[in-house]
Amino acid sequence: MESTKALEYARQNRERNLAEYKELLAIPSISTLSQHKPDMQRAAEWSSKQLAEMGFKNVAVMPTAGHPVVYGEWLNAPGKPTVLIYGHYDVQPVDPLNEWTSPPFEPTVRGDNVYARGASDMKGQVHAFLKALEALLKHEGLRVNVKVLIEGEEEIGSPSLGAFIQQHKDKLKCDVSLNADSGITRPDLPSIVYGLRGLAYFEVWVYGPSQDLHSGAFGGSVANPATVLCELIAGMHDKEGHITLPGYYDKVRQLSDEERAELARFPLSDDAWRKTSGVPELFGEKGFTTIERLGARPTLEVNGIVAGFTGEGAKTVLPAKAMAKISMRLVPYQDDVAVEAQLNEYMRRNAPPSVRWEVRKFVSGPAVLMNRNTPFMQAVITALEKTFGVKPVFKLEGGSVPVVSMIHAILGVDSLMMGFGLPDDNLHSPNEKMHLPNYYRGIEAYIRFFDAIAE
Amino acid sequence: MESTKALEYARQNRERNLAEYKELLAIPSISTLSQHKPDMQRAAEWSSKQLAEMGFKNVAVMPTAGHPVVYGEWLNAPGKPTVLIYGHYDVQPVDPLNEWTSPPFEPTVRGDNVYARGASDMKGQVHAFLKALEALLKHEGLRVNVKVLIEGEEEIGSPSLGAFIQQHKDKLKCDVSLNADSGITRPDLPSIVYGLRGLAYFEVWVYGPSQDLHSGAFGGSVANPATVLCELIAGMHDKEGHITLPGYYDKVRQLSDEERAELARFPLSDDAWRKTSGVPELFGEKGFTTIERLGARPTLEVNGIVAGFTGEGAKTVLPAKAMAKISMRLVPYQDDVAVEAQLNEYMRRNAPPSVRWEVRKFVSGPAVLMNRNTPFMQAVITALEKTFGVKPVFKLEGGSVPVVSMIHAILGVDSLMMGFGLPDDNLHSPNEKMHLPNYYRGIEAYIRFFDAIAE
Repeated sequence: MESTKALEYARQNRERNLAEYKELLAIPSISTLSQHKPDMQRAAEWSSKQLAEMGFKNVAVMPTAGHPVVYGEWLNAPGKPTVLIYGHYDVQPVDPLNEWTSPPFEPTVRGDNVYARGASDMKGQVHAFLKALEALLKHEGLRVNVKVLIEGEEEIGSPSLGAFIQQHKDKLKCDVSLNADSGITRPDLPSIVYGLRGLAYFEVWVYGPSQDLHSGAFGGSVANPATVLCELIAGMHDKEGHITLPGYYDKVRQLSDEERAELARFPLSDDAWRKTSGVPELFGEKGFTTIERLGARPTLEVNGIVAGFTGEGAKTVLPAKAMAKISMRLVPYQDDVAVEAQLNEYMRRNAPPSVRWEVRKFVSGPAVLMNRNTPFMQAVITALEKTFGVKPVFKLEGGSVPVVSMIHAILGVDSLMMGFGLPDDNLHSPNEKMHLPNYYRGIEAYIRFFDAIAE
Repeated sequence: MESTKALEYARQNRERNLAEYKELLAIPSISTLSQHKPDMQRAAEWSSKQLAEMGFKNVAVMPTAGHPVVYGEWLNAPGKPTVLIYGHYDVQPVDPLNEWTSPPFEPTVRGDNVYARGASDMKGQVHAFLKALEALLKHEGLRVNVKVLIEGEEEIGSPSLGAFIQQHKDKLKCDVSLNADSGITRPDLPSIVYGLRGLAYFEVWVYGPSQDLHSGAFGGSVANPATVLCELIAGMHDKEGHITLPGYYDKVRQLSDEERAELARFPLSDDAWRKTSGVPELFGEKGFTTIERLGARPTLEVNGIVAGFTGEGAKTVLPAKAMAKISMRLVPYQDDVAVEAQLNEYMRRNAPPSVRWEVRKFVSGPAVLMNRNTPFMQAVITALEKTFGVKPVFKLEGGSVPVVSMIHAILGVDSLMMGFGLPDDNLHSPNEKMHLPNYYRGIEAYIRFFDAIAE
């Protein structure tokens, strides 16, 4: 049953909603800058006031070791599922300020967009789900249980969130999470991210001479650690772009024909992607499309490498050591612990006796895959299809969303990625914007999502 | 005919000579530090005074764009060869000062050594050839023509010397040069360097995306410039340590069996060399000994490499570009211009279409090989053998000596490398020393060298 009155209410109040959304955008809640601490508090209170005014219970600005978390709940639908909505009220810094057409905290509408820091990442979505809840509560009512969690540290890596969720594990208990910090592929084509790659990040060190040597006096008689590191890195891929670490693909999830067909619907042309990345020609693992390479296949990338003299001019040094930062994007069902053993095994098999070596592990986390065949996921599909008039496409995301992994690990539930940002919204850059039709449709889509969940 | 009186005079005056040598060592003639400019002048004048007092003509402290050159000549042997003696009166800085056992400019004798900055590099040799000339002039006489050139900028790369030699090309005309800025392998074993490797120094750049990309969002779909650069570098050597640039070995001088046997006399054990370099195991081109790899075979070394994020922690960047400093030590008769073309050709053949690349050339210079079968070289052999009582060994030096190339290029003559430093003299380091028996033998060896040249 569709909440037609709530939808009608949302449509009639677009002007008022936009004015209110601009109020939130005007608060410079930059989490990384300590001078904005009072603004962080203001943004948190502004959000909690919204929840309280629409009738949410136990609304609070809850302290953490860092910026506070806004919480509120509506638990008046016994027997119905409980949805934990996740959002964040903090934003990125605004440098370089002189590249902004209008000031970042003076929200300005130009054409179909509102320009402000945080417009798309993610105050637009936060305000949209708040307005959806408000519309429902004013009219047909909210026929599911909802818990809202809005944190203030997403842009600095959510350092306090894990402890917060752990501490309030019972309070946050739910059947599914809705992560509104997401986007769609085009204004006319909704998309659903149903998987995120994991990460395993390492430093690989190669040690040769006890100190930097003169390349004339010693060159030719000892192995060069920089050269050896290059040889080791070169050997980590074969000519077809496959990764050669022993056992690396053993547990990698295979795509079914149905899933490959589904992914192929995603509108990403190689030519457009080449232009976006700025490379002369795309390159990736043989046997897979770009969209598959980006989401469904694991990678091994050199994030950085350094050895010897890298300043201006010519210094004839034979370096004592060389280091590369090497990280892997993991896919289900790779084990983020096992890949460390695989990397070490590769080094054992391939490093020559003329050097010593070491592998240091940094962060790691597994990939996440959401079940596409649950009533919750069906609710997202229904809401998007009804709102946009077109069947959403599915996408596997190349990066990680730590909050999704965190919620999965602590609360044991999937996250539904449902947000309305666009690829060209200038996230983290000057002139961030939100496409207003997406903001309005977002409110309607969230209303329809709660309707669908309640069925 | 041996100048026995001159030799006897040198032996009898050891104490006086040492006292005078210490005077020279006490002048802090550090060429790279501007506050020592007056000391540079003092050291130059001290040296020129020595030449004038022994009877050299046209003695002068001659200006250059930088520190002055000391010059003097003795041209009273018509029909006999002219030898241009090269030396330098400048020294390296002394940091870290606290690691010196005695102050660097308070020459101190401990055991068989005198400790001071410049003791071995190279005031010991400068003073030794001055005392040899003096002894001859006082007794049997100098029966060859001698020109002395002592520069003040060797430790900063001799920036003014090329122009100076060019400007005074006629004045400096000679049949051979004696470069006293050299050493021997052991106190009881004289050695002669008869070749120096050349150098060609490049930067190789690989460009991929137009800017650094997120390794999650783009990883797997574009080539990583750091990985590509590693692959290119890895391919520059084969498994046996041979360099794969097309045509790289075409002109490389082959060693004769006689020369290999001669080089094998040089007392360098692999075990000692491994300890000196600090590597777990030596490595070099298959089919050659360490001493051959060091002097007679060309190299290709990564002097430095950098790409992406190299700071602390984990940044998941896919770098836009990668750069390596790559230099080659060249041997006769490689062409330092041709190797640039070979490197470019290698890149053309091997760089994938998914990146752009560029090779930038820095310094380059050809290898130098002295004729071992001239009367001049024979004079060095005779002088060393008579002085040390043992036949000298021959050695090809791995590095370049720019002055030798410069003199060869402008004056068209070989340089005889004849000096008496030792490998453990701590050149450029704290506690630089000169082995006093070598200093005294040096004086005698120079006397015998001039005798032998005069025959």
